[in-house]
Amino acid sequence: MNYAPASLSIIALPGIPLIQPGDDLAQLMMDALARAGVTLQDGDALVVTSKIVSKAEGRLVDLADVVASDSARQVAAETQKDPRIVELVLRESEQISRKAPGVLVTKHRLGFVSANAGIDQSNVDGGDDHVLLLPVDPDASAQALRDRLHALTGADAAIVISDSHGRPFRIGNVGVAIGVAGMPAALDLRGRPDLYGRKLKISIQAYADMVASAANLVAGEADEGRPVVLLRGLNFARQEGHASELVRPVEQDLYK
Amino acid sequence: MNYAPASLSIIALPGIPLIQPGDDLAQLMMDALARAGVTLQDGDALVVTSKIVSKAEGRLVDLADVVASDSARQVAAETQKDPRIVELVLRESEQISRKAPGVLVTKHRLGFVSANAGIDQSNVDGGDDHVLLLPVDPDASAQALRDRLHALTGADAAIVISDSHGRPFRIGNVGVAIGVAGMPAALDLRGRPDLYGRKLKISIQAYADMVASAANLVAGEADEGRPVVLLRGLNFARQEGHASELVRPVEQDLYK
Repeated sequence: MNYAPASLSIIALPGIPLIQPGDDLAQLMMDALARAGVTLQDGDALVVTSKIVSKAEGRLVDLADVVASDSARQVAAETQKDPRIVELVLRESEQISRKAPGVLVTKHRLGFVSANAGIDQSNVDGGDDHVLLLPVDPDASAQALRDRLHALTGADAAIVISDSHGRPFRIGNVGVAIGVAGMPAALDLRGRPDLYGRKLKISIQAYADMVASAANLVAGEADEGRPVVLLRGLNFARQEGHASELVRPVEQDLYK
Repeated sequence: MNYAPASLSIIALPGIPLIQPGDDLAQLMMDALARAGVTLQDGDALVVTSKIVSKAEGRLVDLADVVASDSARQVAAETQKDPRIVELVLRESEQISRKAPGVLVTKHRLGFVSANAGIDQSNVDGGDDHVLLLPVDPDASAQALRDRLHALTGADAAIVISDSHGRPFRIGNVGVAIGVAGMPAALDLRGRPDLYGRKLKISIQAYADMVASAANLVAGEADEGRPVVLLRGLNFARQEGHASELVRPVEQDLYK
């Protein structure tokens, strides 16, 4: 199977409203597809920001309800962060990876390493005293969206739930997949022939991460209000897929 | 300026031949654009794999001509790699970042951290005794391509020279920009308003890296033969741009 198509269309779905807890994202996506004049097809991929999934799942936390533990207070002092936010970061994390003034990088309970456990205040309603946690189980959220859209349209579309992560060594955030359904998250190309017929020795592509980054180019991160992006023209195997395929086991990581 | 367009087309240019030293890449890209029926426009971005830039620049090395130094032999023993390839990796690098059996990660003389200094044997002519080094100065190569295409077409298109890098913490390679001309490599969105009018606190996008990853989705990494990809619909500022914008200074890196 040839995973690289000759062309690809990327379209931000228009008119997705501000999301409230309990909102039916699949129905809002259907409405936006109709608004764009697009009929969902087998093999389409929809990239949904984790932010709207979290909002729909009611993951907004009022900091007034958070009591910081002693350890959170200590980390907050070292990192010059709000102790209540640090408390939430630690609750969402397995361990601290790095800390410094202004920086708190952890291994999230979902496995990946990121700043502040993905907890964010940008594009969050409720002012400076509310923060948004990542979805409880983004793979399950992606699968539920895939199943709902399949039931509504008959089309088997893949879903990627995306977040923006910083990286060691390189400046700036890129899109990454924290939830995947209906496509391979990592694509193992080892053994495929190169242009000269020699087998590729090392080539695992972080496929769903690149899909998330491509979507980020049209979604924006500020006030664009484009949290759902359609990719049409990809040529992936219709398999279940899990974002955990993209997480390197700690014992194999030279930078832990 | 709104950097996120509502839609984006990504097209692999057809029929790029196997590249030989001295080939005129700009002319080959013109031919491929004509083959695709595409007229280059202001604001287009062309993503070119570092591999074909290196080939055109004659960066193929016959390992028979390489004499490994004592230090290269020692690192080769530790990493179980060919001492002559290690010699080339060390010549292309400022320092070793991590080494282990099968793994040699260095800080490249171009600033970024990557495996084997980007030296690769896949899609390289000449059998197992030849390897390909990265271009000498990818930013300059990108600028030269931009200037040539501008002279040939009158259109100001951005050029990204891409490579595939692995990453700490995450499985799989993604596209990254190692040469940039005509677009910002990193996009500083700090201070822009979010959906609720609050200013974004932290948001630098690794714009050119995401462009490279998006292009990778159609370029492939095996025998697809699609080393030049056109992105149409991006909305970037026409500025010079340097891939070094994406390299975090060592003293600011918590994972060095």
